[in-house]
Formats: sequence, structure tokens, C-alpha cells
Amino acid sequence: MAFLQNAWHMVGWTNELNDKGFLHRTIANEPILIYRLQDGTPAAIADRCAHRFVPLHLGEQVGDLIQCGYHGLCFDKAGHCVKNPVDGAPIPKAAKVKAYPVVERFGGFWIWLGDPASADEGALPDYEFLTDPKRATVQGYMLTKCNYQLAIDNLTDLTHIQFVHGEYQGSEAFPRIKNEVKQVGNTIYTYLTFPNGKVPMFYANAVSDPNKLIDLVYEVRWDPPSNAKLTVRGYEVNDREKMLFEIQSAHIVTAESEFTCHYFFCNSRDYAVNDPEADQKVRDWQRIGFVEQDKPMLEAQQRSVGSVDIMDLRPVLLGTDAGAIRVRRTLAGLLNNEIAAKETPVSATV
Amino acid sequence: MAFLQNAWHMVGWTNELNDKGFLHRTIANEPILIYRLQDGTPAAIADRCAHRFVPLHLGEQVGDLIQCGYHGLCFDKAGHCVKNPVDGAPIPKAAKVKAYPVVERFGGFWIWLGDPASADEGALPDYEFLTDPKRATVQGYMLTKCNYQLAIDNLTDLTHIQFVHGEYQGSEAFPRIKNEVKQVGNTIYTYLTFPNGKVPMFYANAVSDPNKLIDLVYEVRWDPPSNAKLTVRGYEVNDREKMLFEIQSAHIVTAESEFTCHYFFCNSRDYAVNDPEADQKVRDWQRIGFVEQDKPMLEAQQRSVGSVDIMDLRPVLLGTDAGAIRVRRTLAGLLNNEIAAKETPVSATV
Amino acid sequence: MAFLQNAWHMVGWTNELNDKGFLHRTIANEPILIYRLQDGTPAAIADRCAHRFVPLHLGEQVGDLIQCGYHGLCFDKAGHCVKNPVDGAPIPKAAKVKAYPVVERFGGFWIWLGDPASADEGALPDYEFLTDPKRATVQGYMLTKCNYQLAIDNLTDLTHIQFVHGEYQGSEAFPRIKNEVKQVGNTIYTYLTFPNGKVPMFYANAVSDPNKLIDLVYEVRWDPPSNAKLTVRGYEVNDREKMLFEIQSAHIVTAESEFTCHYFFCNSRDYAVNDPEADQKVRDWQRIGFVEQDKPMLEAQQRSVGSVDIMDLRPVLLGTDAGAIRVRRTLAGLLNNEIAAKETPVSATV
Repeated sequence: MAFLQNAWHMVGWTNELNDKGFLHRTIANEPILIYRLQDGTPAAIADRCAHRFVPLHLGEQVGDLIQCGYHGLCFDKAGHCVKNPVDGAPIPKAAKVKAYPVVERFGGFWIWLGDPASADEGALPDYEFLTDPKRATVQGYMLTKCNYQLAIDNLTDLTHIQFVHGEYQGSEAFPRIKNEVKQVGNTIYTYLTFPNGKVPMFYANAVSDPNKLIDLVYEVRWDPPSNAKLTVRGYEVNDREKMLFEIQSAHIVTAESEFTCHYFFCNSRDYAVNDPEADQKVRDWQRIGFVEQDKPMLEAQQRSVGSVDIMDLRPVLLGTDAGAIRVRRTLAGLLNNEIAAKETPVSATV
Repeated sequence: MAFLQNAWHMVGWTNELNDKGFLHRTIANEPILIYRLQDGTPAAIADRCAHRFVPLHLGEQVGDLIQCGYHGLCFDKAGHCVKNPVDGAPIPKAAKVKAYPVVERFGGFWIWLGDPASADEGALPDYEFLTDPKRATVQGYMLTKCNYQLAIDNLTDLTHIQFVHGEYQGSEAFPRIKNEVKQVGNTIYTYLTFPNGKVPMFYANAVSDPNKLIDLVYEVRWDPPSNAKLTVRGYEVNDREKMLFEIQSAHIVTAESEFTCHYFFCNSRDYAVNDPEADQKVRDWQRIGFVEQDKPMLEAQQRSVGSVDIMDLRPVLLGTDAGAIRVRRTLAGLLNNEIAAKETPVSATV
Repeated sequence: MAFLQNAWHMVGWTNELNDKGFLHRTIANEPILIYRLQDGTPAAIADRCAHRFVPLHLGEQVGDLIQCGYHGLCFDKAGHCVKNPVDGAPIPKAAKVKAYPVVERFGGFWIWLGDPASADEGALPDYEFLTDPKRATVQGYMLTKCNYQLAIDNLTDLTHIQFVHGEYQGSEAFPRIKNEVKQVGNTIYTYLTFPNGKVPMFYANAVSDPNKLIDLVYEVRWDPPSNAKLTVRGYEVNDREKMLFEIQSAHIVTAESEFTCHYFFCNSRDYAVNDPEADQKVRDWQRIGFVEQDKPMLEAQQRSVGSVDIMDLRPVLLGTDAGAIRVRRTLAGLLNNEIAAKETPVSATV
């Protein structure tokens, strides 16, 4: 299957670099190695030597070069083999590996799979809140054995929280929910509103009076290919001017292969910012919500769908799927544009 | 591969319902969910929601409905979606899942895969002895990684007991065995007779004088697609009027997929009926005979045969294969009839 | 993929026979059973009964026959079914399994996959040192999940020792290495020389003065399809007449399937011949060098290459690949000859 090339893909959190200083993951079927140059800036090259194709992460970093662990060829950040450890041995011109534009932002490393010339940092989705010094964040990661679009369906149809995460996010206002979708360029927002309801247990600490009824609005912002930001806001009933709380989290999904994806999550808070105990509570909840609830559901769904595209099975669609459908269509449009651009040379003669 | 549709397939023992009241298994590549209505009668529907295709067994039973655990659609026993948890939300007509005729008999649940109109309880193979109040039964189950027909070959050629179960069922009369096959409609009986031999250790308790020579006859009754009943009878030598003992057991095999099957076994006895110690002895023997002896042999056979039909490898056939061959031919005929019936419209014009 | 048929393939070390006296392995996709006749000579037949295709190693040896563990057919060393355990039951002529020429040599069992008439013990690669009574050997085995040719590439390009086994075999003379290839018939020798260098830690005990500089020469002898012998020699600098030490080891690789191989290794020494402690030191080193260093590299390489031939990915080739390339070409030539011979009948009319 085709993956969006001209887009930023998050490869991992910066604190995932290992003892060697390496982070290696397969992104959209391409093996990637990330490391830091001596000046601290990140570099990203293919995690596969040009000589015998072993993963470069089995080697070592030597200065600014990556030395293959099998026969010692050394590659620079541009992917060029610049050293053969045998004196005087020629280096074939073909000895190079793909290099990727890479930026370090929002606590993570992001690479651009497509044409490096078109890599534009301005196209990064905005997760500035993750590095806001006035906020605390707790990051997590889970490899999830489902197509990345199933994970995005999950996020763009938040009615699932009533059933999958019901015991702490469920609401008696559920039958009265309102669902809205808004598109700005290629960014799609879905809003799920629980009007005039009790405060779900999960948000009890965010309000002064947990027994007061509120309007609860979940906003999911999607940016291609599969990056979501969730903002949950509590309001006085029928008064959007009186916001009671706002909670932000990141749900960044990166395709690994057709049927597996990397799911990066991060919860941010503006209270108890340097409180390890508060961190631990978030971590416990992330384990339950993501690892024990979302992940088994998504993986069971993938097994049930099998090795086909879910849309080919003609799923019954509901009103609450409006956001998910819009997202899938937008993504399909972007993918088709990329495929068409490859087929049609840009500099066609008149 | 094609599986017989117009036949009853055992899905599980009734005591296999879990804490939620669910039994879910894949039968002939179809995911099935079994549960009981509030009046106690069983229902069987596809274990795959029509909306996002997650397994329904991850949901809950609410009254007589099954509520999907992902977004809360509710299905009735006929497979129709009859409730969307969002007030006023329409339910698309296509929101239904396959429902199956299901009967509870002989301690198990049986479904009919084919046309519900043709589901006939009279076509159930007879295992009445399993629920005879004067008998005790010990049930078991093992998922076996082989084509279901290999398991049936095992049962219809009982010469294997001399080698696979030799230490307790072997007989010095083995070289003198007689093999017979009888067919009544689509039911096939094979008889394996050990004439004038010592009582095998396994049957020592069933006779008053374990040193007396007997005629031992194994009868296997096969009903399509893969249901066997084994009756072992001891006789005075050369006198079929004088039966010394009769022991019955069920060996019910249900295809899960092309290369895996559900093997349900049940041993019945008419002595020590309420004796948990006797139950345990049977259970111990079932573990040895089925799980430690038959299952490894069948799975090794499947690995050795590989991803082809065993008959395509042109096995050498022996006289003792007569029953197995008759069974395979009969089953192939039934399967071909079903395929032909699908291709030929019933209401052909003259 | 095609495997070389007219060649000896090592199946296992003789001490790998199990409690039943069986050694069973899949060689070039063929399941093989090795056992000893009552006179001690080895026999090799297909590990798959002609009747129901279960592996014969699940049965028993009865005298000089192998009795199938499923229904008791007995096969002789020529693969013929010579006994049906049922009195008077005919034995179909087709009831035979493939038998293989087998020799016991160098502490192992070797079979000939191709035409038995062409099996020539003289074609066995020479590993006489392994059974030299003046030497001690320590054998090992690892199933390695890579194509057997990747394992041979590893052996024919020993520059990898500088990086994979650097901490005990690395040398400061590495940048000055010389690489040579010599071919004698279908046997190919590669020589890797570390001139005028310190003695690597691994060879420190083999020289009287570990601080003296030496010329170190690794000779790898390859015989088709994938049998290597490594001889490491230390010399006075620039004086090939003055050999300081010579260490021999066997690296015998046998294809199991397209993407897995059996890797048999054996280190031989001429000191401390009956010293179990010295044996243990070798065993410890083999675990590190083979199991913890070579095997993970080879298996990572295979995963990285994927389900294609590495040459189809157009690897960048270096001067130090000369031996590996010569070996691959020679093997490809032999394989092509076998394929051509099959296609062209020998007794063509004029």
C-alpha cells in the first residue's frame, strides 16, 4: 500500500535514543536510523547498509559517522559512504543510503519521507503545548498491530470512549451527544459534545464542584497523515464563554507497515508540573486506557478485518462516523495526488 | 476450501460459556458468537459488528441484545441492529449481521451454516448417550492444528491405537484384526475386530475376568461433516450374542479453518456415575490419549503434508483405509452437491 | 529455490542421535531421518511415511527397520516398506520412501541428495583434522534463520571479524589487510592477511611472546555447496617459512530451507587434548562468537534483505568481496549445470 510521502512522520520521542545514541524504527516500510551529530542536531538515514544490507543500528557512531557493524563502511548524515576502513580501498559511487530531512520538535523526531526539497518545517502539525515549560507531559508509545487508519478512525470517532473507556470517561449524557466536523485546509476538526451532563470521573479533579452539570466538548484535530491532537474542554452549560477546564493530549500515529503502526501518546497538564507522583498517575491511566483498552480493540478489529482494506468490506456507516469519513477521504485525496504527480512529469512540454 | 454448509457444526460444550455468558469460536472460517437469551434459549450470530467489524464478544449482553464494545450498536438474535445508543440516530438497513440456527443438544451448541430454511434438527447426529441421566460423561476440547479431515482419518482408521495408544489399548491380537465398512445413507460405520485376544489394559475393569480371551470390536460411526461416535464392545469369543461390555465416546470435530480444527471429546460411562474420582481418572486419560498422543501426531502430519490436500500427495492406501476412503468420498460428494446447487438456479425454466 | 543435489550435505554430528537413536532434520526442504543399523552403519531415509505422511521419527526402530508410529508400516534402509503389521495384508509397491546415500565422517553424518549412483565419497570435503586423535575438538550447532549463502558470505569475507568479533580478534593492522582468492577446481580459497601486526587477544596463548609483531593469515577453504574450513596461521613477519601457530576450525553450513540453515561449527586444538576445562573455554567462546555475534548479524541481515535474493537488491561490492563473489558464481554455475542436465536427456538420439 502507498503511504503519504510528502509529510512529516514522527519516528519516536527524543528520550527513546538508546545507549548507543540510536533510535531505529521502520516507518512506512522504510527502516530508519536516527542519531545526533556531535553538535546535537539529529540525523536520519536508512537503517540498512548499502553493502550487505545489515541494519546500521547494529554498528556504532564514530564522530559524526555511522560505522556499519558488519564490515565497517562509514556513512555520513547525507547517507554517503565516506570511509572504507581498509587503507586505499576505493569507495564505489553507489555506496550510499537514503538520507531523510529530520527535525526535532515537540519532544520527538520527525522525518520527511518524500522529496527533501519539499520538506517544510511549517507543515509540521502544531504540538507546541508538549514543550510548554509551564506544563508537564507524560509520554508513551505502543506498537499496535493494526493499520494506522484504524487507529485514526478510533480517534476521529470518540463515541468509543463511552464503551471502551466507559468506567472513567462514560457519561449519562451520551445519548444526547452532538457531533460536528470542520475542515480548514487539510486539517480536520471533529467536535463531540456531551451537553448538560455530569462530570465524568476522569475530569472530576478539573472542576471545583464535581456535582455540577457541565457541557463537555471533545475536540480532535487531525493533520495528515495520522496525527491527532485531543483537547477536552468543560464549559458552563450553554455558555461557551465560561470554560471550566481544558485538557490537551497528543495522539500521534505513524504507519510502520500495512498492518502495524506506532502509536505515540502524550498527556499534558498545567498543574502539579514537577510532581513525579502526578506523572505516575498519568502513566497508570495511560497503561489502562491505551495499552489495555484501545490496543486490544484495534488489534482485534484488524484481525477481524483481515488482510484487506476495511472499506472494501463495506462497513455500515453512522452519523458519528462523519469525521472519520472526512479524514479518510482527505487522506485518500492526498495519496492520489502523490501517485498522480509521480506518473505525470511536472515539466511537460507544451 | 469449501466447508459443508447444510450440516450441524458443534461450536462448543455448553459449560464453555464464559463469565459474560459468551462462547465465541471461528467455525469454517466464520466467527461465531453464542449466548443465551433471557429465557435460556441459545442464540448464535456473527462475531463481527456490521459497523467497524470488531468482534462482538468484546461487548456485553444487555437484556436479549448484544451491545458492541466499540461504539455501542445493539444486535438482536436475528442479527438485526435494533438500537443505536445515540438518541434519534437512524439505523441503516444494512446494519445486520448473519444469524445462525442454533440448537442445544447433547451438552453442546450446534449451528447450521447454510440456508436457515433447511436447518433440520432431525439431521443432528445421535449422541443421546451423552445426556443419559444414568451415565456420567467427562468432556474435553482441544484446538488441533490440522485439517479436520485428518482428524477424521484418525478416527476412521483405528489401527492407529495399536501404535499411538499401544501401552493401554494395544493387543497381541492386532495382526489378526478384521476391518469392515458399512454405509447407511450418509452415515458410515467402520468395524475393527480384534478376535480372540487378551483384554487390553484399558478395558480390564470392564470385565469380570481380565485373563479371559475376548472378541473386541471397535465401531466408529461417522456423520457428515466430521462427527464420530466410538462404541467399543467386548464379546465372548465367537459369540456376538454375549456382550461383556460396551463403552461409548464422542469425537466431534469441527473445522475452524483449512488447517485447524476444534476437537471435542467426551467419554461416557454407566458406572460410578457420581464419582468425582472416576471423573478425574477419565480426565487424566483424556489428557494422555488426546492431548499428548493424538494431537501431536495429527499436527506433525499436517506440518509434513504442508499446505496442500493430503490426497494430492497420492498417499499409499491400505486395506485398513477402507473406512477413511469411504468417508472422504461421501463428504466430497456432499460438498460437490452443495457447490453444484449454488451454481444451478433451483427454479430453472423448462 | 534450487539446492545443489549432487553434493554431500552434513545432517548433524554423530553425537546428536537422540534416545531413540534418531537424528531428524530437514535438509534442502527434504525431511531426513538418520539412524544406525544393528551393525552400527548409518542409514538415511525420508522422515515421512508413504502412507499418511507422518514423520517417521515419531515411530521406533525395530531391528534394522523403522516402524511408523501411526499405523505401524515398517521401512528398511533402502526405503522399502517390508512389513505391514496386519497378517496377510498386502504391501503396495508404491509403499516406499526415498533413501539417501549416507556416510559417517569427521564426526558427522553426510547425505547425498542427488542420484545415488553418482554419490562419491571422494567428493567429501576434507575435514580429517576433526577426527585426528592427536587433536581435541569441540562441536556446536545453531539453526540460523538466514539463507545458507549469507552464512557463506560471512565466512568468505572475514573482514567482518574486525567489527563483529573485534574485542578478541580485532587487529590494529586491519587497515593494511591484503585479500587474495585462489581457485582449485571447485574449491575456492580466500586469504586475508594482517601484516606486521600485534597478536590479537584470541591468539595470545598460541605464541611465546604476545608482544612480538606477526603476520597473521586467515585461510578459508570453501567446498560446494557451503562447507568451509578456516585455518588461521601466525608467521614471523615477512617470512612464510617460519610459522608460529596454526589453528583449524570447521564451519559447515547446510541449507534447511530457503531462509534457514544449519550451522555446524567445530574448533580443533592440538594442546590440552584431554582437558575438559579447555573444552569449556572453547565452548564459552563459541557461544559468544557464533551464537551471540554471528547469528544475530546474519538473521538481522536476512530480515533486512527480506524474501528476495540479496543479489537482486544490487549490493555495493568491495574488493574484499572477491572471495564471496567467486564462491557465489561457482555455486551458481554448479546449480545451473544440474538444472540443465535435468532438462536435457542424456541419451539424446543423433
